[in-house]
Amino acid sequence: MSTAVVMVEVQRGGLVESRHRGHAVVCDASGAVVAAWGDPDAVILPRSSVKMIQALPLIESGAADRAGLGVEQLALACASHQGAPLHVGKVGDWLATLGLDESHLRCGAQPTRDRDERQRMVRAEEAPCQLHNNCSGKHAGFLTLTRDLGAGPEYNEIDHPVQVAVRAAFEDVTGAASPTFGIDGCSAPNFATTMQGLARAMARFAVARPDTGDARGRAAGRLVQAMMAHPDLVAGQGRACTELMQAAEGKAAIKTGAEGVFTAILPEQGLGVALKIEDGAARASEAAIAALLVRLGVLQADDPAVRRRMAAPVTNWRGITTGEVRAVPGLF
Amino acid sequence: MSTAVVMVEVQRGGLVESRHRGHAVVCDASGAVVAAWGDPDAVILPRSSVKMIQALPLIESGAADRAGLGVEQLALACASHQGAPLHVGKVGDWLATLGLDESHLRCGAQPTRDRDERQRMVRAEEAPCQLHNNCSGKHAGFLTLTRDLGAGPEYNEIDHPVQVAVRAAFEDVTGAASPTFGIDGCSAPNFATTMQGLARAMARFAVARPDTGDARGRAAGRLVQAMMAHPDLVAGQGRACTELMQAAEGKAAIKTGAEGVFTAILPEQGLGVALKIEDGAARASEAAIAALLVRLGVLQADDPAVRRRMAAPVTNWRGITTGEVRAVPGLF
Repeated sequence: MSTAVVMVEVQRGGLVESRHRGHAVVCDASGAVVAAWGDPDAVILPRSSVKMIQALPLIESGAADRAGLGVEQLALACASHQGAPLHVGKVGDWLATLGLDESHLRCGAQPTRDRDERQRMVRAEEAPCQLHNNCSGKHAGFLTLTRDLGAGPEYNEIDHPVQVAVRAAFEDVTGAASPTFGIDGCSAPNFATTMQGLARAMARFAVARPDTGDARGRAAGRLVQAMMAHPDLVAGQGRACTELMQAAEGKAAIKTGAEGVFTAILPEQGLGVALKIEDGAARASEAAIAALLVRLGVLQADDPAVRRRMAAPVTNWRGITTGEVRAVPGLF
Repeated sequence: MSTAVVMVEVQRGGLVESRHRGHAVVCDASGAVVAAWGDPDAVILPRSSVKMIQALPLIESGAADRAGLGVEQLALACASHQGAPLHVGKVGDWLATLGLDESHLRCGAQPTRDRDERQRMVRAEEAPCQLHNNCSGKHAGFLTLTRDLGAGPEYNEIDHPVQVAVRAAFEDVTGAASPTFGIDGCSAPNFATTMQGLARAMARFAVARPDTGDARGRAAGRLVQAMMAHPDLVAGQGRACTELMQAAEGKAAIKTGAEGVFTAILPEQGLGVALKIEDGAARASEAAIAALLVRLGVLQADDPAVRRRMAAPVTNWRGITTGEVRAVPGLF
């Protein structure tokens, strides 16, 4: 990743106080690179930005339909939600319809990121459970497929049928064998790919439609539509994925991943976008993806949700604006 | 800052997932650079890493002694504390001895970083006040000097006698006029300098002694001794400055600043250290300063407090170790 380029600057007092570098690739439906910053061959862990790939086997196998999953469940399968009551309730209900409960999850307990709910839980001395984990929807999807396959309970293991199917789908849509994998925050394997591989996969999703093509393509099309139909389930109130998808008004499905990753799927244009901030900072990945999607015409720079990410004010403890986190002009 | 070098890598699954670049300079008592990584001429905002400089006018003017300040207050004047009851109580007592209270502070209210206290305050529905602000000790120092000077209450203003004195001391010890300033998180001006200027200033502190030299040198010597005598007041339980100073056993005063800055003062060797992570990440600045201080012989790589910063395990929501944040070998 030696050629990462400066994408975001943090300004204070007329000085650039900090800088964030990164890589970004835009691919078209043929897998060709139509725009790139940094190194398209950089190998990255895409983290949660590929949850829609991890959900492909759930749909294309028929397991989702046999379990009667609706559009909301498909959106939650692609989500890094914030463990608000909305998300926790819907994932809990989903597990109940399978005859399962929170104890069957293997993602670990994570404190809710919903401020009001966090304070309520502290006051009530309630501990978070695995339903609060931002990946609990993805794991509910894994459990749905596990049950459909009649497979064992440890669905995170690299040789479990669920993960074998995820890897096969991942390598197909990225167009290359995955060189390695890491264990994610939720304990699932996370397969590595190149920046170009990630953008190519997103372009595959961009040209997929729910009602035409092969089972994988139809599954991809359904997942994209589910994400765009329920931005609030994919992340939550105030979050970048949610607000930017709402601002894009059906022109983009947008997904973040830990350590500064974003993906975007642009169905109208048949384009896929991959972004990785070298140092992993979310403030930078949010600024950069907003700028890239303005450049690609699916977001407007003067939309408040876009502007406060492309040029995010830095405020201090007295509420004074002391600086700005801003995407560099070359991105948009 | 185009020549920032990779200082810290984040590893997951055998892959380097993220990288942090930075600048570091070590200066001797003459102000000469004895070691450097990145660009010694990079202009930075040192943020809270220069609180010992901002406290110089308080001591050298005689205001601290006239107000009867002890070693604990001098340590708090240099602190970015975490608003634990220990810190809040001592700063509150200090203000009371001046006949002042929390309302005279101009740093803003900040939630405590002490976990137990934060949960207690949520349960009691108590809001944080300005005493909880990590800079409240520095501001108590500003108020002490303000009262001694008979100056007005808005001590953060750039032309207030306190800030005029801070700038003069800052430019003297860094050895150069400050090109600009930013407004800090606590609303005080924060003067810019180069990496070399910051390291040179720390070397000035390293050769200062409480009982010899001019008023500025004696003040600097007293502040260094106060920081090393009370690491728990300078930051708090579990924090890098506190634990690394405890590990250094009187061989170094160590201070962090926002946006990836660290300074270190090595009295036995007469050396000053400045570090800035380009992207502002604390996980990286902590790893890099630990490695640099191992290299300089004031920390031991096998000390647990040092090891868990030079090579910090990354764990997930099930407690599984999934990676590591580690200083690159070239630093130590």
